[in-house]
Amino acid sequence: MSPRTVFFVSDQTGVTSETLGNSLMTQFDSVQVQRITLPFLESPDKAREAVKTINAMGQADGERPIVFSTLVEDRLREILSGADAFVLDFFQSFLEPLERELGLPSAHATGRAHGMADTNRYDRRIEATNFALSCDDGGRVDNYGRADLVLVGVSRSGKTPTSLYLALQYGMFVANFPLTEDEFEGGGLTAALKTQHEKLFGLTIAPSRLEQIRQARRPDSRYASPRQVSYEVRQAEALFDRFGIPYLDTTARSVEEIASLSLDKTGLRRRL
Amino acid sequence: MSPRTVFFVSDQTGVTSETLGNSLMTQFDSVQVQRITLPFLESPDKAREAVKTINAMGQADGERPIVFSTLVEDRLREILSGADAFVLDFFQSFLEPLERELGLPSAHATGRAHGMADTNRYDRRIEATNFALSCDDGGRVDNYGRADLVLVGVSRSGKTPTSLYLALQYGMFVANFPLTEDEFEGGGLTAALKTQHEKLFGLTIAPSRLEQIRQARRPDSRYASPRQVSYEVRQAEALFDRFGIPYLDTTARSVEEIASLSLDKTGLRRRL
Repeated sequence: MSPRTVFFVSDQTGVTSETLGNSLMTQFDSVQVQRITLPFLESPDKAREAVKTINAMGQADGERPIVFSTLVEDRLREILSGADAFVLDFFQSFLEPLERELGLPSAHATGRAHGMADTNRYDRRIEATNFALSCDDGGRVDNYGRADLVLVGVSRSGKTPTSLYLALQYGMFVANFPLTEDEFEGGGLTAALKTQHEKLFGLTIAPSRLEQIRQARRPDSRYASPRQVSYEVRQAEALFDRFGIPYLDTTARSVEEIASLSLDKTGLRRRL
Repeated sequence: MSPRTVFFVSDQTGVTSETLGNSLMTQFDSVQVQRITLPFLESPDKAREAVKTINAMGQADGERPIVFSTLVEDRLREILSGADAFVLDFFQSFLEPLERELGLPSAHATGRAHGMADTNRYDRRIEATNFALSCDDGGRVDNYGRADLVLVGVSRSGKTPTSLYLALQYGMFVANFPLTEDEFEGGGLTAALKTQHEKLFGLTIAPSRLEQIRQARRPDSRYASPRQVSYEVRQAEALFDRFGIPYLDTTARSVEEIASLSLDKTGLRRRL
């Protein structure tokens, strides 16, 4: 099949439109897709320009594009509806039923999602990101008292991206600590981990996948050798079991999944 | 008004459901909302448990909850529809029209969005995150050749969270470099920046807001003083102008907005 062009249209960042549209398109495996985001369509001029871009792409493709739109203002949506495209309008479908349910008119105003609705929210995410960075890879264990969660696992099991994602997406304070031969040979948890025992959550990974990741990073090193990799994974899982640390296999999971499962399995509430 | 409980229900991470629901609820400013995510409802048992939770909350609130659902499987959706709640069903509303447009049945299968659809995508995000970390705050300028974008700005203008967000969300390779008195007094760009001139993008911020952010970090320091803050911001903007570096005011913007605008203004395509 020839690729189909998919547009994500928004009066703001396009994040909502991309998220919703990509979710839907994953249900159609066989369709090859070319993705274009058209964000910040805040004026009739920009909306008309977008319509031109969409129509031109449809002409070039020989098939009308699919457009996922989160435009809020009626006058902009009306312009977009003139495009020679298949438009799915997220707000049109849900805002009116919601208005009825709440017994309230909606603001019909641009720029509310992913806008800086309040400074507190921004500050929380930034603080959480700074926390994750300072407590990355075993840093600042003296700050673990402020942590919501401390991820533990061997090098390259997914700790750092998960910590950062949890900070940016949910405002969680997440530290991470690498398990190394220090723990495996000593057979115990270091003091910093012991005192925060109830905050610990383990990440593990299939040795074959870990080997692949480490090979890409340090080819043909001891660090990436099958022997070392399976030793570390075995030791880490034994340690999780011995100390009753809940853990998760990250092998076939996306960062979003690891993050969401970490919260789910520890019963933590999202802070944002 | 009493708070209304909003559930985000998903057979996967809940990211799509949260994005959709939060976007819609921002259109109803006056409604106080209590948010609960119920992710990973992958079995009829779990779906029935969710219905119980939703009903119990409705009883406690005295008002039926609002439920945003991205459940895909018919049997799970049917169970959820039995909840005493106002259910907005994302896939029901949009999958069928898309199926008609594409002339294809959808997979109706769980776990496609934010699942690990392919390893390449995962690897790209992890590599991008590692890149952002190693090139954070002026680190590894020798790696700028691989960068898609180099963010420049004074300390606490939003560079680090933006770099990380662009890595995690879009797989972009983004370095960041802090502008300090070295640049301001020398009046020029350091060699590492000069050679990557076309990749530079500036972030600036209102002095009053910067003062507030720095005060929270280092109260009553010279670093956070009104005089120092406005000196740095003025110098940074002068430098952007002198060298023709496009830039953005981050003051009233969310991380998503700064990230999306940075791509928009530089014409860079998202890599994921």
